[in-house]
Amino acid sequence: MEKLPPKTVERLSQYRRVLAKYQNLSEPFVFSHDLGDLLHLNPVQVRRDMMLLGSSGNYRNGYKVTDLLTLIDQTLTIPKSTDATIIGMGRLGESLLKHIGSNPVCPVLIKSTFDINPKRINTSIQGVPCYDMTRAPELIREHKIKIAILALYTEDIQAIIDILIDAGIEGIINYIAGPIRIPKGVFLKEYDIRTTLEEMSYNIHN
Amino acid sequence: MEKLPPKTVERLSQYRRVLAKYQNLSEPFVFSHDLGDLLHLNPVQVRRDMMLLGSSGNYRNGYKVTDLLTLIDQTLTIPKSTDATIIGMGRLGESLLKHIGSNPVCPVLIKSTFDINPKRINTSIQGVPCYDMTRAPELIREHKIKIAILALYTEDIQAIIDILIDAGIEGIINYIAGPIRIPKGVFLKEYDIRTTLEEMSYNIHN
Repeated sequence: MEKLPPKTVERLSQYRRVLAKYQNLSEPFVFSHDLGDLLHLNPVQVRRDMMLLGSSGNYRNGYKVTDLLTLIDQTLTIPKSTDATIIGMGRLGESLLKHIGSNPVCPVLIKSTFDINPKRINTSIQGVPCYDMTRAPELIREHKIKIAILALYTEDIQAIIDILIDAGIEGIINYIAGPIRIPKGVFLKEYDIRTTLEEMSYNIHN
Repeated sequence: MEKLPPKTVERLSQYRRVLAKYQNLSEPFVFSHDLGDLLHLNPVQVRRDMMLLGSSGNYRNGYKVTDLLTLIDQTLTIPKSTDATIIGMGRLGESLLKHIGSNPVCPVLIKSTFDINPKRINTSIQGVPCYDMTRAPELIREHKIKIAILALYTEDIQAIIDILIDAGIEGIINYIAGPIRIPKGVFLKEYDIRTTLEEMSYNIHN
């Protein structure tokens, strides 16, 4: 199969999570409108995605849950897991590390974290060591780490981003408010709660 | 001005953050392509948004930073702040509370939080009390809280969501992976790191 657009990949990942629940509940079949309802998608979109996977379902029963799960696994499975790191091991970083580590199917492994706080450097959480931030470029290169989760609040994030990308990082998830420059080909996802709160507040009042 | 689309509101909020930096650096002017570069937007989109605000800038100098800030403030300012709550005061919740509280211009105030852990109930962080989760419906109603930030990891989030919406919550920010049902008119933003990691991992490998 050729490379899927990022939005489709995101939906497949979401379908997989819903389908796993159906499987846990021993529900053998699911309809496109059920998936659509749960994921806030148009059922037509769901059916189009399933066609893309090679599954057409049927009008009476819908789609077979195990079939869809197998097809999605085959499509999303990558040859080996991607290594990621968390920059900043305060409360947010620790919470994310534990959450990601608790997911057995996650194709991303956190093998190291970084911080500038001497109290955290050279400790480890759930077997994952925390190193001095100054060692990040060297260790990211050496361990071919591809994804960086930025879990620190600072006003000057650009310098950190530049160092990470120079060391080989290709994907960034950023929990910090603030605009950053990244070169083409680097993936960025921003989880900026302040912007979201402003936006929601406006929508609720208007 | 009539109600702006959510995407526009999100961009205005992002422009404001960039412009505040320009102001701090005593840069009096900014070009649409500078804003576009920093926020990964097309400059045409930026100019269209500025027109909407009523600012047209000029070819030689671009836009005046203070003018844009004033216009955005006027546009986004709501009559009074919106009250929000955080459900789950573990590491993630505490980190979010401190981050949101440190922003002087945020139009959202966190006045209470909720948890089920007896060690956290009846404590307070930065003056914000943590109540027993069982009191959430009563207190959300009483204090007219409109936004709930779900900062807990659980497999059964739907029951909590239903209770919150029934108590008057109109906006939900969800840090938990998993599909949820919400009625029309309720705003939802999902910050699901597992889906994002799967998607990035796929994109980096393909």
